[in-house]
Amino acid sequence: MIGSYLDRVRTACPLVHNITNYVTVNDVANVILAVGASPLMADAPEEAAHMASIASALNINMGTVNSRTFEAMLLAGRRANDISKPVVFDPVGAGASPFRNACASKLLDEVRFDVIKGNASEINFLYTGAFGTRGVDVSDADKASDISVLAATARNLANNEGCIVAVTGAVDVVSDGRKTFAVSNGRAEMEKITGTGCQLSGMVAAFVAANPADKLGATLAAVCAMGVAGEIGFEKLNSDEGNSTYRNRIIDALNLMTAGTLNARAKYREI
Amino acid sequence: MIGSYLDRVRTACPLVHNITNYVTVNDVANVILAVGASPLMADAPEEAAHMASIASALNINMGTVNSRTFEAMLLAGRRANDISKPVVFDPVGAGASPFRNACASKLLDEVRFDVIKGNASEINFLYTGAFGTRGVDVSDADKASDISVLAATARNLANNEGCIVAVTGAVDVVSDGRKTFAVSNGRAEMEKITGTGCQLSGMVAAFVAANPADKLGATLAAVCAMGVAGEIGFEKLNSDEGNSTYRNRIIDALNLMTAGTLNARAKYREI
Amino acid sequence: MIGSYLDRVRTACPLVHNITNYVTVNDVANVILAVGASPLMADAPEEAAHMASIASALNINMGTVNSRTFEAMLLAGRRANDISKPVVFDPVGAGASPFRNACASKLLDEVRFDVIKGNASEINFLYTGAFGTRGVDVSDADKASDISVLAATARNLANNEGCIVAVTGAVDVVSDGRKTFAVSNGRAEMEKITGTGCQLSGMVAAFVAANPADKLGATLAAVCAMGVAGEIGFEKLNSDEGNSTYRNRIIDALNLMTAGTLNARAKYREI
Repeated sequence: MIGSYLDRVRTACPLVHNITNYVTVNDVANVILAVGASPLMADAPEEAAHMASIASALNINMGTVNSRTFEAMLLAGRRANDISKPVVFDPVGAGASPFRNACASKLLDEVRFDVIKGNASEINFLYTGAFGTRGVDVSDADKASDISVLAATARNLANNEGCIVAVTGAVDVVSDGRKTFAVSNGRAEMEKITGTGCQLSGMVAAFVAANPADKLGATLAAVCAMGVAGEIGFEKLNSDEGNSTYRNRIIDALNLMTAGTLNARAKYREI
Repeated sequence: MIGSYLDRVRTACPLVHNITNYVTVNDVANVILAVGASPLMADAPEEAAHMASIASALNINMGTVNSRTFEAMLLAGRRANDISKPVVFDPVGAGASPFRNACASKLLDEVRFDVIKGNASEINFLYTGAFGTRGVDVSDADKASDISVLAATARNLANNEGCIVAVTGAVDVVSDGRKTFAVSNGRAEMEKITGTGCQLSGMVAAFVAANPADKLGATLAAVCAMGVAGEIGFEKLNSDEGNSTYRNRIIDALNLMTAGTLNARAKYREI
Repeated sequence: MIGSYLDRVRTACPLVHNITNYVTVNDVANVILAVGASPLMADAPEEAAHMASIASALNINMGTVNSRTFEAMLLAGRRANDISKPVVFDPVGAGASPFRNACASKLLDEVRFDVIKGNASEINFLYTGAFGTRGVDVSDADKASDISVLAATARNLANNEGCIVAVTGAVDVVSDGRKTFAVSNGRAEMEKITGTGCQLSGMVAAFVAANPADKLGATLAAVCAMGVAGEIGFEKLNSDEGNSTYRNRIIDALNLMTAGTLNARAKYREI
């Protein structure tokens, strides 16, 4: 059952090394703590590889990437690969600027990721970019994408990169290239909070670290847990509470979530 | 009516590029989302100009400026000017250190701002500095300033820079050099939260982007909305809640604010 | 009484210059405001010394240290020493990487600290490192440490560095090398929130700045206040609220805390 992946996070309490953006970093740390893991944030190139070596997983998030943190991402990613620690990639804004595209492409070239998690535009860019057509604005096409198109892109990118791909949206898609799942948890209101995507990447790293034998199931469980927390948080919201309190209630819901709740509320199916 | 400016933000959903400090950046992002716009944070010089070109407005906040982010501010500001995108400037700490003063002066020299928003000390520094008397400690004088002195400074700086100036305080002043308004919304307790000023700058950028034909009205509406949210948030505060919950309730109030509420509660008058 | 130290913070409203990490910086700023002081965050080497000179205290936190902010730490620390402003050091992660260890050692060599605050591992590293055995993994030993061992380490480090040392844990220890106190306020659940340690460092800087004649008492009062806030925040927590709301309630409790509450609830004894 999907809840057992959460239980294993709480039992193992993995240390997750995050090289992430300064916009949502506090929420990422609190979410990693909420699910029972331990966050470590360190982005100096001088220590990035060492920190990756003492952590159980590495989470690379391009949200506010700059030349210094990009160097740290490469160093940490390579080291994690060398010692077979799982690496999660959140290509925030891939497709939005030539610099960011170059960062994403080089990271894909130099680091072997265990999981790539993004929205449809970002995942589409990574897949399209891999075929040499960078710079195309894929956003309009993404909006028209139905679930079968997203699933095909996820599956193809997963096969190209030899990793798991999670695409978030109204319906989330998780694929390892062979098996593909659709997750219909979550609420549209989550888009009115900054950082639920970044929080999910941190959680995926924790789940994969604690469930090394089944990374696909771990990623699927983390995606479900985020969506379920979005639903529970929304149910708890009073009529005079808005997006800031909603943010707190989602993290609270993750903190209090049991395996039983996750089992009962997770809505996923193989597609 | 003032509420229509808010409605246009919610309809247009402008993308606001922020180069801002890491202290309050999460709240700035959530406030921009709360009023119906979309935040983009990116401060690498390699992509600053590009990001400014894809956004509907640029918000430059000097809160934790360093040499790298300063370079990004210049590059983004110049590009936004070239393509006539509105630029908002929050000169946090102008007057507090020679480095910060030099950054503020160079930004004023190189970038044409649509709106400058600061507290009395910061605005006074920008105005005084423009006349060659940098380094004077204006803080004591500021405390003694009455509304007519603030209005004169705002008006003069607005005329010098050809922009709108908003001075926040117990009474806020908004001027384009010809018309000047005093806003008496807000609560003194807002000073016990870090970042309400930074949140306002982000909101001003969103309001100006969505109301390009009337930037003065847009800035005035954003200033009123922030003050009204401070009042509503305070009214919702229980007796055992302090500044951290107050922060959440202010953002919540912005998220739930309707044009009708803003119309009914905004307190401004031309002076 | 211990509450009078808090009252003096609220009366003096000291300006605290923080060079700190981007993970918890917003909470540090709000906590400094909550207790009645004023936060200033600035980490550009170009202005670090100047900002230290205009503030009443300096708080150096190594959480996400990099080469640029490390330079700012040295410049600000030396300047604060030159003009006899108190300096607090939070050696986050000392012992975790060679880079971080080198930063901590150089800061200890170049800056004279008034207070060093860390967890048992960090304090142990600083003490052990001072005797030339850097690189030893002290974490396992730390877990086995009882209060008398912690007290001895705190006392020895305090004597070596000529400063006050605060070691946080299930029981906190505060020592100036001659007098040593154990504080038994706080709750284990505080570890499920990122940043309560960073918040405490900021508070210690505020308390020491406002109580220059008794830095030991000021540090002890800040440690008690943080623990008491953790207890009050937990008492206010509803059954459906988790670590994110707990974070807010702790800061709220600090904001509303009176000297009387702190006097009544502080649990410390000389050991």
